[in-house]
This record gives sequence, C-alpha cells and structure tokens, in this order.
Amino acid sequence: MEQDIKLKDVLYRYQNKEICTEDVISFLEEEVERSEIVFDRDRPSRCGFPEFIYGASKTASQIESAVRKIKQSGQQVLVTRLNKKKYNKLKKTFPEAVYDSSAEALILKNNKAAEPKGKIVIVTAGTSDIPVAMEAKYTAELCSCNVKTYFDIGVAGIHRLFSSIEKIRKADAVICIAGMEGALPSVLAGLVSCPVIAVPTSVGYGTSLQGFTPLFAMLTSCASGVTVVNINNGFGAACAAIRIINTRAI
Amino acid sequence: MEQDIKLKDVLYRYQNKEICTEDVISFLEEEVERSEIVFDRDRPSRCGFPEFIYGASKTASQIESAVRKIKQSGQQVLVTRLNKKKYNKLKKTFPEAVYDSSAEALILKNNKAAEPKGKIVIVTAGTSDIPVAMEAKYTAELCSCNVKTYFDIGVAGIHRLFSSIEKIRKADAVICIAGMEGALPSVLAGLVSCPVIAVPTSVGYGTSLQGFTPLFAMLTSCASGVTVVNINNGFGAACAAIRIINTRAI
Amino acid sequence: MEQDIKLKDVLYRYQNKEICTEDVISFLEEEVERSEIVFDRDRPSRCGFPEFIYGASKTASQIESAVRKIKQSGQQVLVTRLNKKKYNKLKKTFPEAVYDSSAEALILKNNKAAEPKGKIVIVTAGTSDIPVAMEAKYTAELCSCNVKTYFDIGVAGIHRLFSSIEKIRKADAVICIAGMEGALPSVLAGLVSCPVIAVPTSVGYGTSLQGFTPLFAMLTSCASGVTVVNINNGFGAACAAIRIINTRAI
Amino acid sequence: MEQDIKLKDVLYRYQNKEICTEDVISFLEEEVERSEIVFDRDRPSRCGFPEFIYGASKTASQIESAVRKIKQSGQQVLVTRLNKKKYNKLKKTFPEAVYDSSAEALILKNNKAAEPKGKIVIVTAGTSDIPVAMEAKYTAELCSCNVKTYFDIGVAGIHRLFSSIEKIRKADAVICIAGMEGALPSVLAGLVSCPVIAVPTSVGYGTSLQGFTPLFAMLTSCASGVTVVNINNGFGAACAAIRIINTRAI
Amino acid sequence: MEQDIKLKDVLYRYQNKEICTEDVISFLEEEVERSEIVFDRDRPSRCGFPEFIYGASKTASQIESAVRKIKQSGQQVLVTRLNKKKYNKLKKTFPEAVYDSSAEALILKNNKAAEPKGKIVIVTAGTSDIPVAMEAKYTAELCSCNVKTYFDIGVAGIHRLFSSIEKIRKADAVICIAGMEGALPSVLAGLVSCPVIAVPTSVGYGTSLQGFTPLFAMLTSCASGVTVVNINNGFGAACAAIRIINTRAI
Amino acid sequence: MEQDIKLKDVLYRYQNKEICTEDVISFLEEEVERSEIVFDRDRPSRCGFPEFIYGASKTASQIESAVRKIKQSGQQVLVTRLNKKKYNKLKKTFPEAVYDSSAEALILKNNKAAEPKGKIVIVTAGTSDIPVAMEAKYTAELCSCNVKTYFDIGVAGIHRLFSSIEKIRKADAVICIAGMEGALPSVLAGLVSCPVIAVPTSVGYGTSLQGFTPLFAMLTSCASGVTVVNINNGFGAACAAIRIINTRAI
Amino acid sequence: MEQDIKLKDVLYRYQNKEICTEDVISFLEEEVERSEIVFDRDRPSRCGFPEFIYGASKTASQIESAVRKIKQSGQQVLVTRLNKKKYNKLKKTFPEAVYDSSAEALILKNNKAAEPKGKIVIVTAGTSDIPVAMEAKYTAELCSCNVKTYFDIGVAGIHRLFSSIEKIRKADAVICIAGMEGALPSVLAGLVSCPVIAVPTSVGYGTSLQGFTPLFAMLTSCASGVTVVNINNGFGAACAAIRIINTRAI
Amino acid sequence: MEQDIKLKDVLYRYQNKEICTEDVISFLEEEVERSEIVFDRDRPSRCGFPEFIYGASKTASQIESAVRKIKQSGQQVLVTRLNKKKYNKLKKTFPEAVYDSSAEALILKNNKAAEPKGKIVIVTAGTSDIPVAMEAKYTAELCSCNVKTYFDIGVAGIHRLFSSIEKIRKADAVICIAGMEGALPSVLAGLVSCPVIAVPTSVGYGTSLQGFTPLFAMLTSCASGVTVVNINNGFGAACAAIRIINTRAI
Repeated sequence: MEQDIKLKDVLYRYQNKEICTEDVISFLEEEVERSEIVFDRDRPSRCGFPEFIYGASKTASQIESAVRKIKQSGQQVLVTRLNKKKYNKLKKTFPEAVYDSSAEALILKNNKAAEPKGKIVIVTAGTSDIPVAMEAKYTAELCSCNVKTYFDIGVAGIHRLFSSIEKIRKADAVICIAGMEGALPSVLAGLVSCPVIAVPTSVGYGTSLQGFTPLFAMLTSCASGVTVVNINNGFGAACAAIRIINTRAI
Repeated sequence: MEQDIKLKDVLYRYQNKEICTEDVISFLEEEVERSEIVFDRDRPSRCGFPEFIYGASKTASQIESAVRKIKQSGQQVLVTRLNKKKYNKLKKTFPEAVYDSSAEALILKNNKAAEPKGKIVIVTAGTSDIPVAMEAKYTAELCSCNVKTYFDIGVAGIHRLFSSIEKIRKADAVICIAGMEGALPSVLAGLVSCPVIAVPTSVGYGTSLQGFTPLFAMLTSCASGVTVVNINNGFGAACAAIRIINTRAI
Repeated sequence: MEQDIKLKDVLYRYQNKEICTEDVISFLEEEVERSEIVFDRDRPSRCGFPEFIYGASKTASQIESAVRKIKQSGQQVLVTRLNKKKYNKLKKTFPEAVYDSSAEALILKNNKAAEPKGKIVIVTAGTSDIPVAMEAKYTAELCSCNVKTYFDIGVAGIHRLFSSIEKIRKADAVICIAGMEGALPSVLAGLVSCPVIAVPTSVGYGTSLQGFTPLFAMLTSCASGVTVVNINNGFGAACAAIRIINTRAI
Repeated sequence: MEQDIKLKDVLYRYQNKEICTEDVISFLEEEVERSEIVFDRDRPSRCGFPEFIYGASKTASQIESAVRKIKQSGQQVLVTRLNKKKYNKLKKTFPEAVYDSSAEALILKNNKAAEPKGKIVIVTAGTSDIPVAMEAKYTAELCSCNVKTYFDIGVAGIHRLFSSIEKIRKADAVICIAGMEGALPSVLAGLVSCPVIAVPTSVGYGTSLQGFTPLFAMLTSCASGVTVVNINNGFGAACAAIRIINTRAI
Repeated sequence: MEQDIKLKDVLYRYQNKEICTEDVISFLEEEVERSEIVFDRDRPSRCGFPEFIYGASKTASQIESAVRKIKQSGQQVLVTRLNKKKYNKLKKTFPEAVYDSSAEALILKNNKAAEPKGKIVIVTAGTSDIPVAMEAKYTAELCSCNVKTYFDIGVAGIHRLFSSIEKIRKADAVICIAGMEGALPSVLAGLVSCPVIAVPTSVGYGTSLQGFTPLFAMLTSCASGVTVVNINNGFGAACAAIRIINTRAI
Repeated sequence: MEQDIKLKDVLYRYQNKEICTEDVISFLEEEVERSEIVFDRDRPSRCGFPEFIYGASKTASQIESAVRKIKQSGQQVLVTRLNKKKYNKLKKTFPEAVYDSSAEALILKNNKAAEPKGKIVIVTAGTSDIPVAMEAKYTAELCSCNVKTYFDIGVAGIHRLFSSIEKIRKADAVICIAGMEGALPSVLAGLVSCPVIAVPTSVGYGTSLQGFTPLFAMLTSCASGVTVVNINNGFGAACAAIRIINTRAI
Repeated sequence: MEQDIKLKDVLYRYQNKEICTEDVISFLEEEVERSEIVFDRDRPSRCGFPEFIYGASKTASQIESAVRKIKQSGQQVLVTRLNKKKYNKLKKTFPEAVYDSSAEALILKNNKAAEPKGKIVIVTAGTSDIPVAMEAKYTAELCSCNVKTYFDIGVAGIHRLFSSIEKIRKADAVICIAGMEGALPSVLAGLVSCPVIAVPTSVGYGTSLQGFTPLFAMLTSCASGVTVVNINNGFGAACAAIRIINTRAI
Repeated sequence: MEQDIKLKDVLYRYQNKEICTEDVISFLEEEVERSEIVFDRDRPSRCGFPEFIYGASKTASQIESAVRKIKQSGQQVLVTRLNKKKYNKLKKTFPEAVYDSSAEALILKNNKAAEPKGKIVIVTAGTSDIPVAMEAKYTAELCSCNVKTYFDIGVAGIHRLFSSIEKIRKADAVICIAGMEGALPSVLAGLVSCPVIAVPTSVGYGTSLQGFTPLFAMLTSCASGVTVVNINNGFGAACAAIRIINTRAI
C-alpha cells in the first residue's frame, strides 16, 4: 500500500518533469532491491525471535564478531551450542553475558523491558533432559514469553505428571522433552487440548539410538496432533511456540 | 468447582442424616470413576477433533460398527486410510457417505452447521502430495475450520510459491506437504511468521526412502520453528493445527 | 540316577558273564545316544510348551504331515502364522481344529484336562494388537495356564489402564503388547512389581518402522526390569511366561 | 482396606460434628494425594530393587547429593555407569564405597543382613562381557539374591558350556550375556527350562554394530521363550530376574 | 609360449616376404583380441563352474535363448532364481529339464560323465533353509563334486549337530546355511578344521531383518576363519567351494 | 597412430634385416608394457587434475615423501584432509606451502602460469559449508580454472540467492554446497541451465545424519539433472567440474 | 535489456501523457508477473529438456490430459515410469506413441528434425541394467543428442570394457549404469577424461540393498570426479548430460 | 579307536575283578570329560592357527598374563588390535617381541622352524589398506605359510593389477583387501580361478560407511565365488586361508 503511494508519487513527479527518466528507473531498481528485502521481513529478528547464533560450527572469533554486531544494533543475543572452551575465549569481551554450561547457551540481555506475552510450559521426562529444556527457556524468555517448567515427571512414575496436569493445561503451547522411549508426549497430549511440541533428546544408550528412538516414537504417537522437532532442538521448539503465540497476538 | 459443590452438598446431607455412610462412600467411589473420566475430557471428540477411525488395521465390519456408533451419537465421522475394497463393503450401509479414493478417506457429515473458525492454509510441493493434503483438509473442515489450498508450488519452480505467498502469510497455521527432498517448508518458513507444520510424503523412489528423506530434511530445516509430523500424516497435521486454533479461541 | 542303576546292572551282569563285552559296548553306545537325547529333555514338548509348528515358511502339505504326527502322539497342536490359504487346504483333514484367521493360528486340543496353573495377564495398547495377543493366549492356554486379557488400554487415554491396574498386579507374569510408540510397558512396569514381558507390534506406518520403533522404545524403557521379545512374537512372549510359571511350580 | 476404615472414621466423626465440612474436604484432598502416592508403591525401592543412580548423564556433584540422600534414608546404594573421573571426585566423600572400574559401578552397602532368596545364574560368552555381568551381579546381590557366575563359555568352544549345564539348570533365572554374534542364549535356552534373560553387549567391531547384531540375533533366536534387554544393560537384566524371584516369593 | 612360436613364424615368413606388412599388423591386431580373450580363460565356464543363468532379472524368452545357446555348445545348464511362472513358459521347449520349485532352479544335464572330485558337505540349521541348500547342491553337482547334506541340525537342539559332526569333519569344504540368529557356523567352525562357508538366509521375521542379522552374526563370529556370502546365495557358496576344490586338484 | 608408424618402421627394418627377430619380439614386449601405460594416460595428472594427496589415512612422513616427489617433478601439489598436527610436522620442510586450517588443505604452487580456462561458480548455503567450498576452490584453481564464490545464500533467506542468480547462470559448471536439509541445489537447478554438481556437508546434528540427509535430498531433488558427490567432497566436485571444462576445451 | 527499453518507452509515453498513471502501474504489475516467468526461463522445456511426465504417481487419466496438452503445444513427449497397465489405457488415444515396456517409457515424437548435437555414451555393467539405459537414451535423443550404447561390459569380465574404451573416450559425457557392487564407474573413470555420470540400479538381492550399495560405492569411488544420480534414474543422468552439452554449445 | 581299546581293557579288567564297579563308573565319567575335550581338538591351536589374543577389549595386564602363559607353553604368540599405549606397558616384559604400530600387532616367534606350506597372496587396493594386510600376513606366517603381497593395485589404475595378475594366479588362496567402493575383488575374481577371500576396510569417509559399503559390495559381487570376512579382519581372512591350505595338506 505504502509502496503504491510512493510509486504514484514518483510517477507524478516524473510526469511533472520534476525528475528525469533515469530517476524513475533508478527508483524502480531500488524497488526491486526493496522487494527482495521484503522477503526478509518475516525472518527471525522481525517476528520476535531473538538474534541467535548457532555456535557449534563456528570458531570463537567468528562468534565474537557476530555477537558484537548484534549487540551494537541494540538487540539481545542468544548463542546456542557454545561449548565451555569457546565461552572461555568470549567471556573477557562480554563479561556481562550469562553462560549456562550444561545447556551450552550464552545470553546477553538488553535493558528494554518488553511486555510479557503468552504462556509456554516446558516439561521434561528426566533430569538429564534439563539442558535441552533450558535452551528452550532462554529462547522463549528472550522473546518476552512467560515460561513455566516442570522437570522429571516421566511416565515410569506417572503420578508425577498428574499432580501438575491442571497447571500444564492452561498453556498456550507445551514443549514436552524426553529421551529414551520418549513416551511422555503421548500421555500428555491425551490429557491436554493445547498444542504439544515434542523434543526428543539423546539421553540413553543402545537402542535409544542417540535420540532417534524417542524421535520416531513421538512421530508415531497414538495421541493426535503432536508435532516434533529435531533431536535436542530446544531452540527450535521454542521458536515454534513463539510462532504460535505471535499469531495469537495478531 | 461444580464438583466441590456437589461434595459439600453430599456431606451436608450426610451430616443431616439424610443419607447414610454407605451413600457417601458410594458417592466418592463414583467420584473416582468420574475423575477418571476427567482425564478423558480433553480427548479428541471433546476438543473439536472429529470422531475419526483409522481404517488401515481394521476389518470392514469393525469399521462399520464403529461408524454406526458414532453416527448414532449425532456426530460427524471421518475414516482415514480406508482402501477401495473396504469402502465397497461399507457404501451400501452408508450411501450418504462421501469417499475420496485417492486420499482413502470417508466422510459422514451431519446437518449441524458450526460457526467457522480459524484459517488453515495447506500447500503441497507436487501434485502427488495432494491425497495427503486432502486428508488434512477433510479433518480440518469437519472441525469447522476455514481451509485454503495451494497445490504444486514446489521449489524447482520457485516463482509458483512467490505468487501465493501474501495469501499464505495470513493463515493461523500453515500445513506444508512435500515428498522427495522436502525443501518447501524451509523456503516457506523463511517467508512467513505463522506456525508451519510440515508433512513429509512417501512420493519419490530410491533415496527418498519412502518419505524418510523429506522427514529428516524437514526436521533439520535451516528455517527456525518448523514442526513435523509422521510421513503422509495429513490427519495428524490437521489435528495439530486445530490445537493451535482451539487455543486461540479460548 | 536311574541311568546309574542301569549301568551298574549291566556291569554286574557282565561281571557275572551273563552278557559279553560286545553287549556292554553296545549298551554304552546306546547310552551315548540317550545322553544326546538328554540334551533334548528340556525342549518345548517336555517343559510344558505345546507342540507347535511355525507355519510361515512351510507348505500346506509339510504342515499337514507335522500336525498328523503330533496328533498321533496324543499331544495338543498349535500352528502359528498359518495363513488362510494354507488353512483352507488343512481344514478337511482336521475338521475338529479351531482356526483364528486374524491371529493366523490353528489349535487342536486333546481331551486330557490338565490342572490349571499360573496367572498370565495379557494387555494390549490398541485393538490392532489383538491378533498378537491371541497368539500368546492360545499358546499359554495349551500349556494349562490361566489367562486374563485387557485390550485397548493404551497411554493416550491413560485412565483406561488405571481402572484395571489392581487386577493386572496380581499376575505371575504380564505380557504387554503395543505398536506405534510402544509406551505402554513403560507406564505399566512403573505400576506393577511382577515380571513384564513386552511385545512390540508392527501396527502403524512411517516412523513406526514396522515395529522397530516400539521394539527399541521398549528396550530403552525408563522403567526397570522390562524384557522384550521379537516384533509380533506373541508365541515367544507366552513361552517366556511359561518358563517363569514352570520354574515357580518346581 | 485400611483407607476405607479411615474414611469411615472421618465420616463418622463428621456426622458426629467432631469435625467440620472443611475438615472432610481437606481429608479427601489429602486422600487424592495419597492415591497418587499409591501409584508409587510398586516403584523400585519398594519391590526389592536397590536404590540405584544412573551415573552416565549426571555430574559428580549431582550424584554425590543423590547418594547422600539415599544413604541417609538407611538404604543401600548402587551407582551404575560411573566413570573413573567422576568416581575420583566421589571417593573422598564416601570412602567406604566399593568401586569396580571395569563395570563402572559403585556400591554402598548397609549393615542390615537380608535373608538371601532366589538363585540367579549369570553366564557370559567371553571375558570381555564380564563388566556387564558384574553390573548385573552387584544389582542382584544388593537385592539379597544368590548369584552364581560362569564366565567365558561361548559357543566357539561348546564343551565349556556343557561342563556347567547341570548347575545352570537349577537357577530361578539365567542371565546370559554375549556380544559379537550373540549365539549363546540360543544354545543355552535349548538346554534349560528356566527363564533366560539375554543381554547383548557391544563387544566386537564392524558388523557387530556396537551390539545391535547380538541384540537382533537374540530377539530372533530359534530357541523359544528367550527375552532380551538393552545392549550392555546388566542392571536391567538383574531387575527382570528380581521381578521373577519376588513374584515367586509371594 | 605357443604364442611366441606363432609370432616367430609370422615374423619369419614376413622376413621371407611370404606375407606383407599388412598381414603382420593384421596378425598382431588379432593377437590383441586373443590376449583379451586370455583374460577370459579363468571365467566360470573354464574353471569348472557350470554354465549358469541368473533368472531373476531376465524375461522367459531371454532365458530360453540363453539356455538354447549353452545347450547347443554341449554344456550343462543351471538356471537359478527361476520362478514357477517363467518355468511354465520354458518347460515345453526343454521337457528334459529338471525343475525344483522350492529352490527355483532348473537343471539341464548332458550325458558326459565327469570324474567325481572333492567332498562338499552342506548343512542347514532349519528346514526352511533347504531351498538355499538345494541351489548350492545343484551347482556343486553340475561341477562333478561329491555332495553330502545334513538338514535341520540348528543350535536350539545342539545334539543334532553332534551326531553328525564326525562325518562333517571329513569335507574339503563345508557350506553352512542358517537364518534367524545364524549361530550354526560359529558352533560348527569351532568343531572342524576345514573351510567353512556360511550362507545367511532370509528365514524369520522382525529382527532377522530379511537375513541381515544372520549375515552380520556370521561375519562377527567368535569362531576364526569363517567366510560368508550374500543372503540366500547358495550358488555363490558352491562356487567358492569349487574354487577350493579346483585349487586342490592342481 | 604414432604407435602404428613405429610398428611399421620396426617391421620395415626387420624385413631389411637391419634388426633381428629378437629385436622385434623385444619391441613388441615393450609395446605391451606401453599399452598398459596407455591405460594411465587419462589418469588425473594427465587430464589437468592437480597432483593431490589424500592426507587423512597417511602419516606425516608418508605425506612428506609424496609431496617431495611431486614437487621434484615440477608439478603443483594439493594435500587434502591434512590436519593441523600433521601440517605442523610438514611446515618446516615446505615453508613456502600455503595451509588453510579450516579446509585442512595444503597447496604448493609452482611458477608456471597457465592460461586460465573455464568458469566455475561455487555457492554455499551457510558459512559452515565454507571449508568444503575452499577445498573445491583450491583444486579448481590449481587446474587453472576461473573460480567465483557466493557464500551463505541458503534457502531460509531466499532473496540472497536471487541477488546473485544472474552471475551464477554464466558458469560452465556450478558447485552447490549445502548441509542440513540440502535444499539449495533444488532451488538453484530450477533457475540455471548449466551443470549443477551438488556437495552435501556434514553440518547439522540429529536428523542431518552427518550429511546423509542432504545427500539423499540432493539425489532425490525435484529439479532435473542435478548430480551429486560424496559428503564433504569438495575435491571430487572440483574434479567433476574440471572434467566438464576439459571436455569443452577439446 | 529488452525489458529496460520497454520500460523507458512506457515512461516516455507516460511523460508525454499518452498513457495515464494507472497504465504505468498496470505495466509494472505485469512486469512483476513477467519477472516471475523469468525465473521459469531455464526450466526444462526451455533449456532443451524434453517435455516429460513422471508417470509413477499419476493416474492414467491425469497422464492422458498432460500428454494431450504438451502434444498440442507442438512439443515432443516423454512419459517415464509408465507401467503396462496405464499404457494400455493410453494407447488408444495415442496410437502413434512408441512404448518400451521394459524401460516403462512412452515417447511421442514430432516431425521437426533438430540438428543433432553432442555425443553421449551410455554403458551398462549387465543386461539387467538395460531398461535404465533405455530411459536415458530416450531422454537424450528427444533432446537431439547423439547417443551410443555399450551394454553388458561389467568388471567381472574386464576385457569387454577394454575393447570399447577408445570409442567411449570420445564422448562429451559418459553415463555409466551398474547395479550390485557398482564397480564399473570406478574402472571407467580411471580410463577416460570426460565427465562420467554414474547411475546405480536396483539389480541384485540381499546386500545390494535395492541399489543403495552401488549408490554408496559410486559416491565413494576411488576414481576422481565421478558424479552420481538417484537409483535407476536414467532420466536424471540424461538431463545432467544435456546440461553439459548445452553449456558447451553456448 | 584307541578309546575302544582302553574301554575293552577296562571292561576286561573289571570282568576279571581287577577293578571294582566304582572304578568302571569313574572311568566312564572321565571318558565323558575326555569326549568333551575331543570337541576341542580342532580349535585354533591344534589346527595350525597361531595362539592369538584379541587385544582390543583387554587390559594391558590381562594381555601380559595371556602372553606369558602361551609363551611358556613353547608356542608362538600373536596379539591383534594392540594399541601403542598398551604395547608400551608390555614391551619391558617382552623385549624380544616385534610390534607393528600401524597394524597394531605384536608377534613373539619361537625358534622352531616349521616346514613352509601353501602359497597365500595378499593384495590391497590402496596404501591405506596395508595395516589390515599386515595383520593377515603376520597371522599366515606364524602358521608357516608362504605369503606374497601386492599393494596399491586398485581399480582406478587397472593396469597395476594386470602387471601382477600372472603371479597372483598361482596362489592357493588370495586375500583381497579394499576400502571405499571395494571393487577390486570383483575384478580380480574374474581373472583367477583360485579361492578369493575379500576383506573390506574402513578406509574412506561419508558413504564408505566405515567399511559397510565395500563389505556389501563384495558380498554382492558380480564375480562368482568370492567369500567375505568382517571389516578390517585381516586375521580372520588369514585363518580362512589357513583352513584351505590345511585341508589341502591332508
């Protein structure tokens, strides 16, 4: 709409000979570039996702330069999969950063307080799933979501789930994290009506297949409407929850 | 709440000796049974899911009896994975049923018109993905959702996606269906901010691995926040979208 | 022991020259053969297993001759994995046989009533798992075990399990049958202290991997002490339960 | 039963106005919590399993706090998959603990001598399978079971098995541990009538597939009634044996 | 050597101008072709292998023409993997051919009686492995080998193997065929010193993985010096045995 | 041709008795050896491939001796998969060598300037794919190809690809490198008509399967005529491009 | 360029008031649509690929309507993966079409004779690979390429390859088709310098893994610069060769 | 035979009352034990295999004690898969031992010179396969076999194989070692008539699948009669060759 107005204006000024043919062509060429940028307007940074950096396949110095760039733009920063060794190189440059060594996540908040929105509940089957849960939590909180967590409520002691189920039911989106046989999302999705995003983890050994068994189990869940993200992908699950909450907010 | 009131009432009447001890115990025992039913209150039929029957592993006569039961309760019916041969046995009993032989779905509507709610967009990469899309469409429509479809807009001719992108953007949830390399959800999720539920299909041969290649590709998508359901699971994707819409509606 | 007596007897008669050296050698050679048979004394037919025939890789005429042989010895017969086509060839010869076409099992009882022993409980997650359950049931009953069944009590509607749990608890062995994500044994084994034998089934599609996903899930169960048999192997699960009961009975 | 009595008592006192309505409701609410705890009464610690901690995915300090808690409750402790490095951090705090570095197991006994019960036989195919056998042994012994072991009696030298077979036959449960081609349980189960729990190990290279080849071989054993646990899962096999013995004991 | 003589002769005649330069070049070019044929001199038909045709991926008419060609050259014919349907088309043209429908093999002998050579023993674990054994037998016998067979002597009843072991020991090569867990070659190779060629079969279901489990088990056998061929490849095993016997015969 | 002339000459001199029969035979024997060498004339070093050494499975001293040999022959050297540790041992001996530690490649140029030929474009989906791209670039440049690179233009931000597409179109061959879901070659090959060689990388985790997911995705691409090389095989992709350019140049 | 001229013209006429503002906006909007079509200009039909239809996942009537559409546009038609049954439905409508039942390909030529261009050589390892070769041949010939074929020259009789190698060397691109162990491309690429496109086939059984073994073997070939397409994808290999030849032709 | 004599003797003395009944029973019991030992007479140490120790899953001190025991019995020793670290602990105790660090093999010869027997040829495709070849060589030489080696004659430079083929042909058994695509055994077995034992190696990356691709390729070889051992199993291949040679020698 705004674009059309600008275009009409240009054409009008051109017709009035205020600007020459070259100016119009130049304007249109810029328009093309802008239209490319248009494709970008839904990219993470614009739809409420935090500026994040996947640290696993980058060197410490590559990460440092990326963090500096985002920070200078006044935005918050989340680095995922940042191992201790790389963090040790970064911590002098960014002493204000918070680092969670089990989740391998580094967070750099800014001072702008955003209005909290949406209720995300994160549950884990075991204590070993907590690092993945924390990655999801950091991601969601940087996007100003309210996050509640219920850890270690797996199916081998089913009563642990029941004592929290009423509170879980009230979420806009539930992130359900489990390794080994990955049964928790099936039980949980049978008890709540809100969206359930399942995250398989690589906890276990042998037939847990580094997380492929819970992944496959969650995808073939007997409970309807469970969706799944990659193994250990707490970040991705949080982004999916944010997509849900942002759409609600429209 | 209502429960509490009943309980107080029972206790009050007990205290007033209107009812005896056995009556209270009997009430409480029923309560336990009711509390079990409570666990069921979020099950599909109650949260807006259609009454559906997974036809693949049931005989024609088992399906017939299930359909009759649901129909008698006044609800709509969806039978998924119902092959032609089984349908031929059912069609005499349910001549009013609509059957889509490519999607292998049978639908039995009732006359109760529900208020339409939510906007679901279903896109497919190729024409071979359409049966899965139709399964999703039937499921969503039985739940009174508005559904728009865009078929055959895969990435090998990327302009086909662009011409529809503005309309896709306005959805409450996008269901994105693709086989072979399964690239469409990655491109699409980079262009929209709403929830994207990806459905891999078993279209292709050789390294498409009966749908495991697009499944894995979608799970490891470079676009953030894509969630995934089982191969060819149009029904499950629709249920996930319904969970999102139902939560919005609260 | 009995052997020793015979041997002493032979040696005694030899010493008394009632029999010659060749007789003793001949006796000892027979002994060797007998000792080989000794290795057989724990084979199925002797430890309470029914005489069974795995029908999948045998022709109808091979099966017929095997059934006749067992029947003539006065024993009961169980043929597993016997498809309809083969059964149709057999039913004229054995009109008294009972055939379950969904379980693909044929049973030929004899009239000897054995003292019932042991309590086996068989539970299934879904209705599609019932054929596997029936194979287990037929096997156990031919071995004179008491069998109770609880079908369709899977985890997506967890209350169904709870209403039967007290009765399940009293079993000598529980056979727990589930396809898809195979979560039921994990939940169940957290609620009972008796042996739990899990049977994965090939129910489902896509990531259920023809039963490998529930197989792997059951093996990596978060509940301790669950043991597992091959996919769809109801017969094997029953044999394992019989081993447990027979050992109890000693 | 006991519950019912309490309930009647409460109701009686309520009817007698000794307690008010709120008291009854409060009692019932507690009851609900108790009924949840009921689900827990079969959990490991109550059915004779030792209090154990899976050490692989926990930090040394997490393990330390867990051990301290269990120890203070007067129970015995078993930590499995505890590597040397973590043990070195723990040994100062628990100098009385016994540590087996090859089995990666730490045991903390108490002084309460329990009545020994049940006969478990543990056999291994090779010497490399011994650490898994020891994990099973420690688990079973903490539960007061009698354990006998026969190591290195694999099928390539079949006479080694035969010389011990008579003693193996007398077990309540046999745990049979093998890597590589995993053939031992098949041969063994053909020679004994008691329950055989097979444990595949990751011994070998190439086509042994880190234990998946013996796992699959054991599951598809030509001997009937063999059950299987996860790769290297000595602990799980012992728990399964304990379930068998505990049920016997009823 | 013979070649050299011919060459010298040609050169001599050339020097004597009996033949021209073109004749020499032409001779040399033929020589090149001959030298290529040299590479062929060890091909099956020359090293004692029968002329065989792999029938699975050929049409009936392609097979017919191939059989006719070999037959006309006076050689014997073996067609492997020839299904019933194709055989029915061939049997009119070759009424003298012998067809084994379970082994899916067609044999056309000639009247030339060859001196029998070598002793091949073929053993199978079960009756379902017999078709593969027969394919091996037909192949070996067409190459004039002595073949002895011992069927159904698998490890679940280990005494069956022992009663034949002395006779098996005398073979020049043992072909050992087994499906399911594929344990027989391990036990057998521990008892004999001659070459053991193991053939996995696709007998079984679930974790037998269409023969990959016995294949992997045989390759990771704890008995030294077992070699393996492809699943169900009786023909290949026989060819390997023939290579051994032919080399002995030099 | 040249060979024929020599042969005729030898025969002519032989006919003139300038040389004896043995000389001709000797010449022909040498010819045989030469004809073997003929098979080599298309090997890498002759068809414009650089002399390269695959460093992963060689020791530092083996590599050193190979480099020295090639260098002495006056040719350029490329060592691929040379880790830092091995490089540190080599750098003293070859101080003039250039080493790229992320691509793990060592290059030793000579001073002979070759005429540049062909246009190769190398594109990557992400920054983590750059090391593989650099291996391809070094390989192609040592063969005197013109190389242009476009990094980090993956499909999640599709506009990045479009801004470079006109320049990419003009290549003789495009090498397209991507990890994770590997979607870039599908989109790219739909937009250009020149050969597209796809290289999957092991970037990602979980379902990226160490590069097998992008490998399979690229092989089942919905865009026609994409060819693929091994995971991370930048060298191989460059060699394929060189084959195309060298054939053009004929 | 042409676009720019049109744009300038439009703007000029606008400035001269020959056309109104709405006309310019309308022109620009059309331009946007045209620019989308631009993305299509390299699509198969324009870069010399035949108009082809993948018949496997389409119904006979869908194919019929697609063929009719292409035919009416005056172009040639190739339908791949068209089984006999579907062909029988089509042959009445298109009696002039040529159908190859083993390659499952239908070809509809037009009368326009194109200038032949490029030399493609297609080689197969065995006779069972010929159907895949024919699919490639039909594809390439519809694009006016010269095609030569050399069938059944696999590595087990290596001399067969050598007798044709000189003629193979002269190709612009070699398509090398092999199943089972897929060794031919490795040997061939060591003998020629032109591009080698390898096509694995699903010929074989057991460890040939429906073509995955030759696929993986070709990708890890010890000969440099071999590229690979999907299993049985003769069409894709031909398209890749056409890309090479079309680029040469520029 | 000898046994029979002893038995008759015992019986004779018993009949003569030189010995009592208990003596005979005792003798027979010993006989049983002896007959068990009989099964062992073909075990490695007796059929010419060296006394070997698989070092990978044993500690240095376990290996040390095993070596000492074998050495004291006057036999030769081979330790396979002995890493450098463990060797360093052993070398002080056995300074006379020879250690090959690339093959990870330790050899301890004795002074008894055995008559050399049999001709084993070992060929490798590449230089990276040499360690596996050396393991085979050490094994065969300790068994007094003549061993010839031809290294680095893989199929990408096929002339290298041809220059050695005549010498390879004369072997009693050929061990053919290759990684990556594993094509060498197919080419080689097409050129020789003696037994070919193929050994896949884990050389390569990506689709070489740690040796599973050459393993599968060798098993599905188009050349008949190739047999295969486990990945990198040079020891096993040598044992198979020794079985062949020992049988020849009878």
